[in-house]
Amino acid sequence: MGVLVVGSVALDSVKTPFGVAEDALGGSATFFSVAASYFTDVALVAVVGPDFPKEHIDFFRSRGIDITGLTVVEGKTFRWAGVYGFDLNDRDTIDTQLGVFEGFRPSIPKGHVESEFVFLANIDPELQGSVLEQVANPKLVACDTMNFWIDGKKAALMQTMRGVDVMIMNDSECRELAGEPNLIKAARMILEMGPTTVVVKKGEHGALMCTADGFFSAPAYPCESVFDPTGAGDSFAGGFMGHLAATGDTSESNIRRAVIYGTVMASFSVEQFSVDGMTRLERSDIERRFRMLKQVSHFEP
Amino acid sequence: MGVLVVGSVALDSVKTPFGVAEDALGGSATFFSVAASYFTDVALVAVVGPDFPKEHIDFFRSRGIDITGLTVVEGKTFRWAGVYGFDLNDRDTIDTQLGVFEGFRPSIPKGHVESEFVFLANIDPELQGSVLEQVANPKLVACDTMNFWIDGKKAALMQTMRGVDVMIMNDSECRELAGEPNLIKAARMILEMGPTTVVVKKGEHGALMCTADGFFSAPAYPCESVFDPTGAGDSFAGGFMGHLAATGDTSESNIRRAVIYGTVMASFSVEQFSVDGMTRLERSDIERRFRMLKQVSHFEP
Repeated sequence: MGVLVVGSVALDSVKTPFGVAEDALGGSATFFSVAASYFTDVALVAVVGPDFPKEHIDFFRSRGIDITGLTVVEGKTFRWAGVYGFDLNDRDTIDTQLGVFEGFRPSIPKGHVESEFVFLANIDPELQGSVLEQVANPKLVACDTMNFWIDGKKAALMQTMRGVDVMIMNDSECRELAGEPNLIKAARMILEMGPTTVVVKKGEHGALMCTADGFFSAPAYPCESVFDPTGAGDSFAGGFMGHLAATGDTSESNIRRAVIYGTVMASFSVEQFSVDGMTRLERSDIERRFRMLKQVSHFEP
Repeated sequence: MGVLVVGSVALDSVKTPFGVAEDALGGSATFFSVAASYFTDVALVAVVGPDFPKEHIDFFRSRGIDITGLTVVEGKTFRWAGVYGFDLNDRDTIDTQLGVFEGFRPSIPKGHVESEFVFLANIDPELQGSVLEQVANPKLVACDTMNFWIDGKKAALMQTMRGVDVMIMNDSECRELAGEPNLIKAARMILEMGPTTVVVKKGEHGALMCTADGFFSAPAYPCESVFDPTGAGDSFAGGFMGHLAATGDTSESNIRRAVIYGTVMASFSVEQFSVDGMTRLERSDIERRFRMLKQVSHFEP
């Protein structure tokens, strides 16, 4: 069935205690697309400048990602630079140059307005809303956001959320959006805002899914070698939506499996800089980690 | 088979955003004993002053807890006072009066030196070590500690840990003891220090168990009404050790079940002040939450 993603394509400069990457391929739509490409057809809508390296374009193509919607406009590609501290949970953004991303007005190519699975990566909720107006009748829309929009554009975000089926956000965003420190209560409160499912990403603590029927607690993959957490959340979303789009099954039990596939893709993503952990996977690598997560969370009654 | 616990019995004054308790029954050995008493026979070794209310003694007896080892010595019972902030993860200790606990030298009553299951609650690691010298040949020893001892008495703690089978600690303690921010690596490093099993308590994020065979990730019980987190970790340990002692089975699959019973008892504990959430449970209440945790963490391959 395929999945449509709208978000950022960027060049990231990242410093972690384990190394440095300069102008590496990054951006929410990038991590999402690469992760999802192991499951289904992916169409990417984003914007870059003429400075965006051709090798990255070639890489998207090599992963079978449809880049009809990746427009090149005059200006510089979005650049982000960040430094991670010793425990990798602290991240300082040291530079953000929006470049052409500042004027991004997503236009969904004609061939993709019928997309059944749509992911609104973390961009201005007004732009997320404009994407929802362009797509015809999606079967499932998932959406990410961040504290910046919760603080600054809450009304637009709430409006967009009315058209969203699955909110995918991290735990601090969830608490902030709901104004409630208890994560269980906060997730339930977000269900009242429109989505039928909330997936809370908790990094090393796994993920928590909340629906009207109750909760699903997913383990984290036990990663001993976390090298660069950048893009983990978008890789999670890519595995999650990729599995749903590949199967076309939006039942609760299949959404639970999708959370596990998201967890698997995030685990590969954090093991190397940029998307390097997701460039040469086999489907069997993914299935092996899926089974490992089953084993890690199993107990007998 | 029964379980022996050595730790503190205290009077706690606690303020949370939801209410206040003054001189309520508290202490690590208290929470542990009450939780474990739903599973097996419990013998408690601790010290109090003559000011310790008789109603609490009666309560221990009503739960079938053996208090032969609860000595009363001249002085004041250990008192602790703390305040929790809005998100219940921040706790400020506002007063600690050790009283008779300062001179506590645990003496294991003759009838309990043959105990097969022993829990060393969070006290000076030298005293924990003296308990290990007094017990004959336990089948399984579990041990808790805290940052205060990791900072101040690391050598004694390391010595004690050589006689411990299961370390039960929270995530920040685990990282600090190992000097490693990656929790997965940190848990493995603690295995090198003697224990065969490390159980990391992560509060609202559940628990992580590490053995030579790998990891077990246990979900948290989805508590919407956390009222007072005091004693959650000791209640967890009580459910954990209570189940192991009741079954006498120390296989990995049974230790996984014990982690779930620990999670269940912690969930009851935090729903009310002091041990009030664990005074009138039925075994069926416990089993219902056990099954709920199975459902919460289940996914199909």
